[in-house]
Amino acid sequence: MSERTLCVIGLGLIGGSLLRSAQNAGWTVRGAAASEADVAAARHAGFTVTSSVDDALAEVSDDDALVVLAVPLPAVVEVLGVLARCAPRCRLTDVVSVKQPVAAAVARLVPAARYVGGHPMAGRSASGWAAGSATLFRGASWMLGCDDGADPLVWAHIAQLALDCGAHVVPAGAADHDAAVARVSHLPHVLAAVLASVGADGGPLAMALGAGSFTDGTRVAASAPELVRAMCEGNREALLAAVDDALGRLGAARGSLASTGALEATIRAGHRARQAFEAARAGAPANTGAPANTGAPENTGHLELTSPGAFGRLRELGRQGARVTAVHHTRCQLHLSSSMATPWQPVAP
Amino acid sequence: MSERTLCVIGLGLIGGSLLRSAQNAGWTVRGAAASEADVAAARHAGFTVTSSVDDALAEVSDDDALVVLAVPLPAVVEVLGVLARCAPRCRLTDVVSVKQPVAAAVARLVPAARYVGGHPMAGRSASGWAAGSATLFRGASWMLGCDDGADPLVWAHIAQLALDCGAHVVPAGAADHDAAVARVSHLPHVLAAVLASVGADGGPLAMALGAGSFTDGTRVAASAPELVRAMCEGNREALLAAVDDALGRLGAARGSLASTGALEATIRAGHRARQAFEAARAGAPANTGAPANTGAPENTGHLELTSPGAFGRLRELGRQGARVTAVHHTRCQLHLSSSMATPWQPVAP
Repeated sequence: MSERTLCVIGLGLIGGSLLRSAQNAGWTVRGAAASEADVAAARHAGFTVTSSVDDALAEVSDDDALVVLAVPLPAVVEVLGVLARCAPRCRLTDVVSVKQPVAAAVARLVPAARYVGGHPMAGRSASGWAAGSATLFRGASWMLGCDDGADPLVWAHIAQLALDCGAHVVPAGAADHDAAVARVSHLPHVLAAVLASVGADGGPLAMALGAGSFTDGTRVAASAPELVRAMCEGNREALLAAVDDALGRLGAARGSLASTGALEATIRAGHRARQAFEAARAGAPANTGAPANTGAPENTGHLELTSPGAFGRLRELGRQGARVTAVHHTRCQLHLSSSMATPWQPVAP
Repeated sequence: MSERTLCVIGLGLIGGSLLRSAQNAGWTVRGAAASEADVAAARHAGFTVTSSVDDALAEVSDDDALVVLAVPLPAVVEVLGVLARCAPRCRLTDVVSVKQPVAAAVARLVPAARYVGGHPMAGRSASGWAAGSATLFRGASWMLGCDDGADPLVWAHIAQLALDCGAHVVPAGAADHDAAVARVSHLPHVLAAVLASVGADGGPLAMALGAGSFTDGTRVAASAPELVRAMCEGNREALLAAVDDALGRLGAARGSLASTGALEATIRAGHRARQAFEAARAGAPANTGAPANTGAPENTGHLELTSPGAFGRLRELGRQGARVTAVHHTRCQLHLSSSMATPWQPVAP
């Protein structure tokens, strides 16, 4: 069944984990990567992979495999160039951490591709095939793009892939996604780098005294710098807004500490925010194909992807914290669930 | 043997862990706390504890127990007031996260106490007796104060306590300690609060997309706000310097991103700093009473605590990343070890 055939370009942490995970879920998988080391490791693990991206994509016109771009943002344009020659109308998604630049590149280079952007929110500081695992996406959020014009059937296929990998699907428009991840994914990398540098400025004594809070706060500074730069610099406008917010809050903390000696507003706001995040995580649906039973307030509903305005409605639901927990994809019908504290208006079945 | 008798005031995470850990190592332990819940839990676990700090400290004049202040900074003055009445010449240490204010309060209220400040660098977001464990200090750094005038024999007793709990001892002056922890312990709490707030400003979608980097970067924002405030506000001057350093670096990142779109300097510096921290951790001695064998460059040496200028020398060694790994405390002789990349001048035996 070709709709469950996958061709993954890039066999690093995310691409390599996707290959393993999808195969475990019964998908027919193959892959390609420029990295000889990743190709050799994947082949050694028994996967059908090639170091020729051209060869891998040439097959797509025959078998209509779902193509997944799992390369860093700077490499996307080159792969799209190959795709434009080999399989310009393919079903296409990606796992790049910024969505608007990828969507723009796809529209420019392979406008006929049936593209739906994606972003699984799973990662580790380590990179490359060896760092991946079949369980990387279990319990993770997997953003799927909901901009107007997406192909409902392809959307349902990719949502099923994400669910099959153990993730739950967070629907969002590309711009909303980029603004959100600037705050919760890219800013954390910038702050981790700043914290690591300020700590190291304290010399060997500070390094000897660094413990849990410093270890956790700087963990992602261990990530490959070129990958961190690619995702942060690729989301420049949204990241600038997030950095400005952080500068404003840190400056306010500084002013309060200097003038009155108090940090109450900063610490209390941070504590409340962390509690809100923990509540959102606790309320994330278990991936059982059924709504979660967490005791949290819950809304569920169904939505026909082929109905008028469906993607606009999905974008709005995503802003309210909803997740897609099941796909009946012969009818393009989605099951949605939210257990955010803020109730949202369930979609009529 | 009274030198191995311990009276711990405060039975929260740190005090409660110390009671368990020291007892496991063969110390005779007892404790007191104002929190009825902590006292009840400790008593239920079989420990000799009381909710009367007065009663606990009154015994110290008889058995010369080593008193450990394990209360938050705002409660220190009250306990010292009791101590001044009950046991003004006792052997005294503390585990408070800021050292200069505690030293000043001791000098003012119990000037005859044989005080050596301490700070075990171990913690969790959770607090209270229930959050503690006998293994909390295993592998941790435990700062011990090296300001002039410390009693060498008491210093050796407390160093032995730290080693018995599985920690290694980091020697430092109070001012050096406070400057270092502002960078690696207090600033991480401020940045975690700022990051949590900026993330929550992104609404339910951002909360749904928050993953590893946001989880780690905001973990300590889950800590009890009043404890975070007490330690941060208690180290105001040093924390202001650390916040200013962070503001400068974050502002530089902002400027670079806005003008050239590049974050190279920020990300590379953070990566190098994190690697330096990981190297320092990897080089921390195993607590076996012998120098670590990690393959890292290593220096070892001995130092007689009773020799002239010994504490000044220890402060200098601490600045260079040295640890005390063994104490021959009948002779007040310390074994020191460092595996920092920067070599230090070993002390002649």
